[in-house]
Amino acid sequence: MIKEAVILAGGRGSRLKDRTAAMPKGFLEIGGKTMIEWSVQKLLGAGIEKIIIGTGYLHEMYDTFAKKYPAIKTVCNEDYASTGSMGTLETCAPHVTDTFLLLESDLIYDNIGLYVLINETHENVILASGATHSGDEVYLEAREGILKRLSKIKADIAPVYGELTGISKLTTTFLNAMCEYAAQNQETASSCKQKSTLEYEHVMSACANVSPVFIRKIDRYAWREIDDETHLQMAEQEILPRIIENESLRAVRREILLNPGPATTSDTVKYAQVAPDICPREKEFGVLMAWICRELTAFVAPPGEYETVLFGGSGTAADEIMISSCAPDNGRILIVDNGSYGERMAKIAAVYNLPCTVFKSSNYEALDIVKLEAIFKSGNYTHLGIVYHETTTGLLNPLDVICPLAKKYGLVTIVDAVSAYAGIPMDLKKLGIDFMAATSNKNIQGMAGVCFVICNKNELEKTSVLRMRNYYLNLYDQYDYFVKHGQTRFTPPVQTLYALRQAILETKQETIEKRYQRYTECWRVLVSAVKKYNLSMLVKEENQSHLITAILEPETPDYDFDTFHDLARKHGFTIYPGKLGAINTFRIANIGDIQPEEMRRFTGVLGSYFVS
Amino acid sequence: MIKEAVILAGGRGSRLKDRTAAMPKGFLEIGGKTMIEWSVQKLLGAGIEKIIIGTGYLHEMYDTFAKKYPAIKTVCNEDYASTGSMGTLETCAPHVTDTFLLLESDLIYDNIGLYVLINETHENVILASGATHSGDEVYLEAREGILKRLSKIKADIAPVYGELTGISKLTTTFLNAMCEYAAQNQETASSCKQKSTLEYEHVMSACANVSPVFIRKIDRYAWREIDDETHLQMAEQEILPRIIENESLRAVRREILLNPGPATTSDTVKYAQVAPDICPREKEFGVLMAWICRELTAFVAPPGEYETVLFGGSGTAADEIMISSCAPDNGRILIVDNGSYGERMAKIAAVYNLPCTVFKSSNYEALDIVKLEAIFKSGNYTHLGIVYHETTTGLLNPLDVICPLAKKYGLVTIVDAVSAYAGIPMDLKKLGIDFMAATSNKNIQGMAGVCFVICNKNELEKTSVLRMRNYYLNLYDQYDYFVKHGQTRFTPPVQTLYALRQAILETKQETIEKRYQRYTECWRVLVSAVKKYNLSMLVKEENQSHLITAILEPETPDYDFDTFHDLARKHGFTIYPGKLGAINTFRIANIGDIQPEEMRRFTGVLGSYFVS
Repeated sequence: MIKEAVILAGGRGSRLKDRTAAMPKGFLEIGGKTMIEWSVQKLLGAGIEKIIIGTGYLHEMYDTFAKKYPAIKTVCNEDYASTGSMGTLETCAPHVTDTFLLLESDLIYDNIGLYVLINETHENVILASGATHSGDEVYLEAREGILKRLSKIKADIAPVYGELTGISKLTTTFLNAMCEYAAQNQETASSCKQKSTLEYEHVMSACANVSPVFIRKIDRYAWREIDDETHLQMAEQEILPRIIENESLRAVRREILLNPGPATTSDTVKYAQVAPDICPREKEFGVLMAWICRELTAFVAPPGEYETVLFGGSGTAADEIMISSCAPDNGRILIVDNGSYGERMAKIAAVYNLPCTVFKSSNYEALDIVKLEAIFKSGNYTHLGIVYHETTTGLLNPLDVICPLAKKYGLVTIVDAVSAYAGIPMDLKKLGIDFMAATSNKNIQGMAGVCFVICNKNELEKTSVLRMRNYYLNLYDQYDYFVKHGQTRFTPPVQTLYALRQAILETKQETIEKRYQRYTECWRVLVSAVKKYNLSMLVKEENQSHLITAILEPETPDYDFDTFHDLARKHGFTIYPGKLGAINTFRIANIGDIQPEEMRRFTGVLGSYFVS
Repeated sequence: MIKEAVILAGGRGSRLKDRTAAMPKGFLEIGGKTMIEWSVQKLLGAGIEKIIIGTGYLHEMYDTFAKKYPAIKTVCNEDYASTGSMGTLETCAPHVTDTFLLLESDLIYDNIGLYVLINETHENVILASGATHSGDEVYLEAREGILKRLSKIKADIAPVYGELTGISKLTTTFLNAMCEYAAQNQETASSCKQKSTLEYEHVMSACANVSPVFIRKIDRYAWREIDDETHLQMAEQEILPRIIENESLRAVRREILLNPGPATTSDTVKYAQVAPDICPREKEFGVLMAWICRELTAFVAPPGEYETVLFGGSGTAADEIMISSCAPDNGRILIVDNGSYGERMAKIAAVYNLPCTVFKSSNYEALDIVKLEAIFKSGNYTHLGIVYHETTTGLLNPLDVICPLAKKYGLVTIVDAVSAYAGIPMDLKKLGIDFMAATSNKNIQGMAGVCFVICNKNELEKTSVLRMRNYYLNLYDQYDYFVKHGQTRFTPPVQTLYALRQAILETKQETIEKRYQRYTECWRVLVSAVKKYNLSMLVKEENQSHLITAILEPETPDYDFDTFHDLARKHGFTIYPGKLGAINTFRIANIGDIQPEEMRRFTGVLGSYFVS
């Protein structure tokens, strides 16, 4: 798995004259987007966690740009004017910690090149293409696929095996060898004492006798380096259309899920599932799972004080894990039931014969906090089980009030946050949540199949002495085994975890705060249409989550959920009926990888059904 | 989801003269493979379940070819010589039951075209390309992307939007309209009264005013129809290399897993995970799951008498489902423990405080059947829990003897067949197995995340009255809910189920009998190398499964598992240590999508470590 990339963006690109007077080359726009933005988005989509941009000329522009992308780290080569690209790579080198992709900044390229390099078994690899006739080729000579020599002068190379694209994959060992070579081969005439005046590709070539550099050639690769006006024209008229067509062929048909999870996912999350086979007991997969646990924790609590425990299963499995694993036989659990998921927690407690009392409250009205506090105060309970966001109705329970109260009276808090986690900013420590269940397939925007419990470590440790009530779903055993072995007890859903990794990266890129804003914006679009078409919502606006909205079905005889569902489906939207005893609703969830304009398009469908 | 395809292969292809004197055009070889074989393999890889080949000229060759592919159904247009391709399509039409892909037989094409068509939201779609200059173009005219007219005469079309590739997607409604049109527009001069003399594309065009036909154009699509010698040359020299390069870019790095599951998977199974988002409570997903259940059952038992119940979870989850769901409180379970998985079954029973006795036997020697029968005879037990194939050692328990004996004495049989199912031919009814646990990620060659229990329906029904001991893992509740609602109780791992569907199709293509032969052949390669390098196996050959082999670690001081593991990994093979108390082994599993030549390559690595 390749997690890092370096983009060499130090130089001015003086051959583009006026165009680069006010900006570095990477900021040239092609097809309405800057080259650097194309490249960064492709790298993020390919699962790169950290992008180091080696800047120089007008570096402030990169620094500003980097604010949009938390994954980017800019590093400035102050001497860019007097060094070659190797000087910029030397500046970046200390920040590289693992095998990485190395790219020039003035490229457009088909993203499949990144997948091909990441997929390569060879360690050090140059991505090459067939003849481009660009007028600025770097020709490659090979012996059995291994780089022998490179040159801009065709006559130096016999025969030409391919052309350098400016995208490579290198190990840190090789990078160190390159830096060492550069230091030892400093041109004496150079005004710059510290950094190399060489171009990185020549250093790469010079080091190829130390470690072999494999050339992965794609004969018809769609790419272009932009060095002058001719390149720019060629890129816009010929290469970009090819890239766009190639990438569009791999796009997945967009179906927008407005059902309350699984939610709509990005294509990059979908493709993250396609990875080389791996035994999940290999060390590197353990490292991946540990990373996932840490990042899932970090979204809502300080890692170390809190721990995430992964399981293969659904959200209900996670609820059962908590209920069956967290309370001792002599514990007394108070479960708040104001919707299907609270009811389910109670049902699980009953299945295990756990001493449990249900606090029943309206499915669509706010909880009576005063009453609840009185019960906490009674001292009759050791644990509180409650749902953060009721998926059935979109009712949000005010855990910011309830959990601290429960903690005040010494209760351990067990929270089903399946449809709240990663959609609503939360701080478990501040909220006083001890155990929190969620899944991979709702607001975190991954695929279904993984669930997890985020635990206050102190409370988790206390459960180590409890008798096991089940085996597969036991929380402490799963935690303890992973800590000791770096493996899960049982085979985990490998590909779903790869997708979850990508979903986490995309969540970090967006941030949960901004995701909540996006969800809320979608919700506003929906609510305004609901009002416009004289429909009613089950839950008062102030008690709603902004994530799921239960809309009362009109009592007119011509309303038919299935007809409405099929109409929406035909337009690419999936909606879902409510399930709430006597009250008939349909539910619109605006979670997942969806945009306000898509919700607007849906409200058009809503209107066309309810107005006609 | 598109499940059917029709290939029109009736005509002779007379323009290829001598080449088609002895064979239909589809049997022309390009790049060492016949066109029909290229096409069929691509269709199967794209998830097509049923391929209807409309034959005519030398149809026997197709009939013989079809024997290799259970998915193929050949249908002969006896009047091929006097009809057009529409006549052949009419012959196929009665066998088409759903939206289908329609292909000509004399094509080579990039498989991405199939994915693009399957992905298309439009119902009736022609796949088109940009200009091919092939000399035999069918030009397309469009209005807003919809087919308006087609013709071989360029002057008839203004402007040319694209060229017909001979690959389309059509609904049955449209197909019926085409057949109706053909019947009504029979040329009077025709010698054939029944079938159309028209070409299918003209009928398609004629019907386009009834239902719109969308044109999906890929400007640079790599494809070629072979009508004459020039085309054949063009295909071999220019088009096939493009197709091969394009498809190779999407190939996933091959890592061969010799650990005992998850097993190596095909790229087509990997890519089956990449599908449009869907709510798993949609009816079509229920239909998919019902199909999966039926097919998983059909591999080992008669559907209807036996039922498969799906869960999200690992093999251990499936064991727990059986143990916790199948025996009443007053039942007495006898569990055979001759390896880690038998031990685990006993542990699960203990966690639930179930009355259970463990029959302990050697981990590597054959069970004492006489002793076991005496215990069955004692009348002390109601249920038997046993592992079919011990993943720990490769020891195969002779269930063909044990389970019928257990049935003879009235015991309900609960079998962990996690690493036997779909690798060893079995007949649950004949064996007398009542409940059998397996997963998606071993011999069935899918992805990890789904487990299932195949149940004797009579025995399953009896468990309906048992109290629930857990919730998520309850067998009867899961079964009952799916029967009633066509949905699983909880969100299933959607993408893992798509992969499982593809894995089932590939298993049906190979058949379990032939898969067992392939596994056995790999095992023989391994065993002969083990002997050659003076290594010893833990289990006697006659008691081995042929699927997993536990090899004793040599007691020489220079042996080090990690070094050996890392060497193997470097060559693309993952091996796994044994876990068996005092006896140290490493294990080689030859399950999954691997071939004998790959096992031979591995034995080379084995040799290089153990000889040097």
